[in-house]
Amino acid sequence: MKLSKLVGMRFKERPADCVIDSHAFSLRGGYIKQVSSGIFSLYTPMKRTCDKIETIIREEMNACDAQEVLFPVVLPGALWEESGRYQSVGEELLRFKDRNDTNMVLGMTHEEAAVHLAREYGQTYANYPFCIYQIQTKYRDEARPRAGLIRVREFTMKDAYSFHTSQEDLEKYYDKMANAYFRIFQRAGIPDVISVKSDSGMIGGNVSHEYMLLADAGEDSIVLCDSCGYSANMEAADTTVDNSGCSGMKELEKVYTPDCKTIEDVCSFLGTPVTESCKAVIYQINATDEYVIVFLRGDYEVNETKLTNLLKEKVHPAVITEESGIVAGFCGPYMQNAKCKIIYDKSLMGIESLCAGANEKDYHYTGLNIKRDMGDVEYVDVSKIQDGGICPSCGKKAIRISRGIEAGNIFQLGTKYTQSMGMTYTDENGEIKTPIMGCYGIGVGRMAACIMEARHDEKGPIWPISIAPWQIHLCCMRADNPESKAEADRIYTELQNLGYEVIYDDRQVSAGFMFADADLLGIPVRVVVGPKALANGEIELSTRDKSVKTNVKKEDIISEVENLVKNLYSEIGSKVQARI
Amino acid sequence: MKLSKLVGMRFKERPADCVIDSHAFSLRGGYIKQVSSGIFSLYTPMKRTCDKIETIIREEMNACDAQEVLFPVVLPGALWEESGRYQSVGEELLRFKDRNDTNMVLGMTHEEAAVHLAREYGQTYANYPFCIYQIQTKYRDEARPRAGLIRVREFTMKDAYSFHTSQEDLEKYYDKMANAYFRIFQRAGIPDVISVKSDSGMIGGNVSHEYMLLADAGEDSIVLCDSCGYSANMEAADTTVDNSGCSGMKELEKVYTPDCKTIEDVCSFLGTPVTESCKAVIYQINATDEYVIVFLRGDYEVNETKLTNLLKEKVHPAVITEESGIVAGFCGPYMQNAKCKIIYDKSLMGIESLCAGANEKDYHYTGLNIKRDMGDVEYVDVSKIQDGGICPSCGKKAIRISRGIEAGNIFQLGTKYTQSMGMTYTDENGEIKTPIMGCYGIGVGRMAACIMEARHDEKGPIWPISIAPWQIHLCCMRADNPESKAEADRIYTELQNLGYEVIYDDRQVSAGFMFADADLLGIPVRVVVGPKALANGEIELSTRDKSVKTNVKKEDIISEVENLVKNLYSEIGSKVQARI
Repeated sequence: MKLSKLVGMRFKERPADCVIDSHAFSLRGGYIKQVSSGIFSLYTPMKRTCDKIETIIREEMNACDAQEVLFPVVLPGALWEESGRYQSVGEELLRFKDRNDTNMVLGMTHEEAAVHLAREYGQTYANYPFCIYQIQTKYRDEARPRAGLIRVREFTMKDAYSFHTSQEDLEKYYDKMANAYFRIFQRAGIPDVISVKSDSGMIGGNVSHEYMLLADAGEDSIVLCDSCGYSANMEAADTTVDNSGCSGMKELEKVYTPDCKTIEDVCSFLGTPVTESCKAVIYQINATDEYVIVFLRGDYEVNETKLTNLLKEKVHPAVITEESGIVAGFCGPYMQNAKCKIIYDKSLMGIESLCAGANEKDYHYTGLNIKRDMGDVEYVDVSKIQDGGICPSCGKKAIRISRGIEAGNIFQLGTKYTQSMGMTYTDENGEIKTPIMGCYGIGVGRMAACIMEARHDEKGPIWPISIAPWQIHLCCMRADNPESKAEADRIYTELQNLGYEVIYDDRQVSAGFMFADADLLGIPVRVVVGPKALANGEIELSTRDKSVKTNVKKEDIISEVENLVKNLYSEIGSKVQARI
Repeated sequence: MKLSKLVGMRFKERPADCVIDSHAFSLRGGYIKQVSSGIFSLYTPMKRTCDKIETIIREEMNACDAQEVLFPVVLPGALWEESGRYQSVGEELLRFKDRNDTNMVLGMTHEEAAVHLAREYGQTYANYPFCIYQIQTKYRDEARPRAGLIRVREFTMKDAYSFHTSQEDLEKYYDKMANAYFRIFQRAGIPDVISVKSDSGMIGGNVSHEYMLLADAGEDSIVLCDSCGYSANMEAADTTVDNSGCSGMKELEKVYTPDCKTIEDVCSFLGTPVTESCKAVIYQINATDEYVIVFLRGDYEVNETKLTNLLKEKVHPAVITEESGIVAGFCGPYMQNAKCKIIYDKSLMGIESLCAGANEKDYHYTGLNIKRDMGDVEYVDVSKIQDGGICPSCGKKAIRISRGIEAGNIFQLGTKYTQSMGMTYTDENGEIKTPIMGCYGIGVGRMAACIMEARHDEKGPIWPISIAPWQIHLCCMRADNPESKAEADRIYTELQNLGYEVIYDDRQVSAGFMFADADLLGIPVRVVVGPKALANGEIELSTRDKSVKTNVKKEDIISEVENLVKNLYSEIGSKVQARI
């Protein structure tokens, strides 16, 4: 198509509210336009890229024998009541009433719809295993949409749901899907996506993995082990703390610590190491307002997801009242009389002499030995693993915390939905059983944004050819020059007749303007026809990533373009081959 | 794919609540499953058919230089306030609030979103004309969903929006789109869809057409002229009434008509023809409750859409109170003292002597001549055209009223949205102008249902090959017979390797069961491998529509299937050629 007819505007200035590059380029290149917070329209270039991503996903899902179906966007609340999620999910589930005053929701994930669709078909063991998927619009009423297509409210997602008669069968299929996910990312030009063990959150189930694109702009923290290759998200990484180097037992003593409100203040005032201190972080359970005190080593932080999973309750930072009996700033485990839930984090294990709050204004204890002074307590893991910490897999101090963007996820759901929604099958022996489910998601628009984030320079995206809006960008310099124009027109026609996707810029604009637009569109192969090179019978052929820049004889341009396109595809293809 | 692995159930019994065949077959063939009233999930066969319909639509839109984009499903209410439709559209627009208490709507049509997306690009005349379209989920909170995918609440729709700098340019493009629509219906195997002039309804604009599939099960009435080919929907067809045969002037007389409440009662009591009577139909304007009396010939009916368009107000049947001054059952034009709006329908024009209510209980006038007794009044057209009536185009009494299903529509919108939403462009002379819009819609799922309704027999759908879920249905009779199985497996593999879409039934079930399923799936080409024919070295090849049924040599089966598939495609192709 001709660039002059492409609906959308491109511009030079980076919008002030863009914190990440892909967001800025999405706006500057005429890819998206915001309609409401976290809700975007897609212009043709982004739509074309998303279509190509969808095609890759579809091919890989079909190769896993998954069958494409379509669930509704608007779902009856009653269906979500069957699984219990109508109540349990927070405000991100958009609930409303239709004209008949019936409770409805906007689908943010479709486990319930999948069980609803497959419930009858799944009545006999002979029909297992099977997997259904859709590529459809979803809506999550995010509190804080951000970063363009990275965190939105409305998005297109592929979500697949598999059904099995045994855990082994689920695991086999889960591995197959995990491989399909790697192929998808490789074929889309981001083979550097890694999978990390993750917490299942509101979806449910035990084992799950996230596919992470490492990126400084990412909003997720990822735990990586440089020694053994272990990877997990923060919620899923068990924290191990080495307290072997502590300075032995001391006597318990109450000391005056005026105006020391933080653990750092106290340690600095007393001259004790923060690694031998016990701090208190205080929450309240959302549903009951009951207080929860977490005691952990002074230099560690609570991971609230771990805490929520442990309590099976959502929590918020506490508002401490006088009636609570908690002495804010001086709260400690010894002589703690407040009526509340008390949790000891594993980071305290093995410390023989602790500095801790005395539950009395301006006083702390030193020399506290929990076992000696308080007896046995149960230690649990609710703290965040630290950079440089101990790898839960190999035990070496080789943990690195990186930033990443989640590009997909897979879950072993177990029977959470099938059981609550009464889906059963009759097995070989005539017994009634509950099927086991897996689910597998990828956001299409977020993946496009991920690719842009991973593959760009200072001028714009560098689209991998497999998902570029067009394959070839043809520029006619000096379209007012008849020879230039005729040659560019010929190339445009011939390439299109051969089935290539060409965006053709024949506007009478300056070279700088033309190339700035071309850089923003990020098309991998560029052909520049201009009077200067043409005088020597030549045409310029280059790639957006600058790895190729050459002049070719005008009679060879078509075949050279064909070779280049083929090479670019096979580069991505060969990566795929290498990884599998 | 193997039929044994296809998710979904097929069954024999027609569900009791299905009033039309396509709805029954959609359920019986495992195509759809209802999730809520008017909200369905699609199983793989229907999804595949919808995908193929979408591809045809996409190709034809692209051929009109329309550019595919994607608008959101969830739109901010503020955008609909710009056009005024946030207030003006009824309950079918689903309004709700997000977590920030912002007004949102579910997109039921995207004129506002299109203007929003194109507003900046459309600032200069040089960028015109252009057209953007999407294929996306829509939601209309229908009061009465019915007939499976025919009238639903959630549906996938292609909607295109074109922008022009002159009415001539819009009309040129409108014609181009009209042709594209015919090609779409032809390529999808329903070349018998007709276009009818229609009323623009809540979308707005002046000229519009609906594409109608004539079907007894349709919910729309269509006006057709058997003489000149004129077609329109009821709202758009001007009613012309021939009163030339009336029985001349008489004296005005008030007569006693006890217990005659309907116009038929009165005419029968007085022995006057109903064609020389004047009846009153009384409404109230929704917004103000003001009364509106429509006087029309006794045997005609009010078309409420015509009335609404005339008044530019929505109306409802009146509740007549004593204070209104209207004498229910005896309401007439002469000596009418009620304070209300009075409308004279054209069906009264030229009647020299009327029987009409006397606005007094149990009395009517006879011999009323409106011009003589009341002076000049304005006549307007608010009545329904009748079967056998006068064609507004050729003037012959050749009107036939048929039933139809609306499969698409196109509108000349004018400046309704661009003006209200402040979209402007600078023309060649530097003047600020308002662009003119057109819009063009097709429902994908409804089109699939239309095709099923138009192309089925008593056993199931007969899918046109261009949109069939698969091209070839391969049946292995007696899959326990090694020779049969091996031959069927070979055909399955070879056809798939050649790129054909094959659904393969190798279940060990009876022939009756197998063919009932095949009929419900409606695949155009059927290959049946069985021991009996195989003993003669033969395989059965047939079409779902029974036009072909033959045994072919097993070594020729692949090439014969290829020929048959090619012929079926070219039959649809040749229809396309013939129509354009």
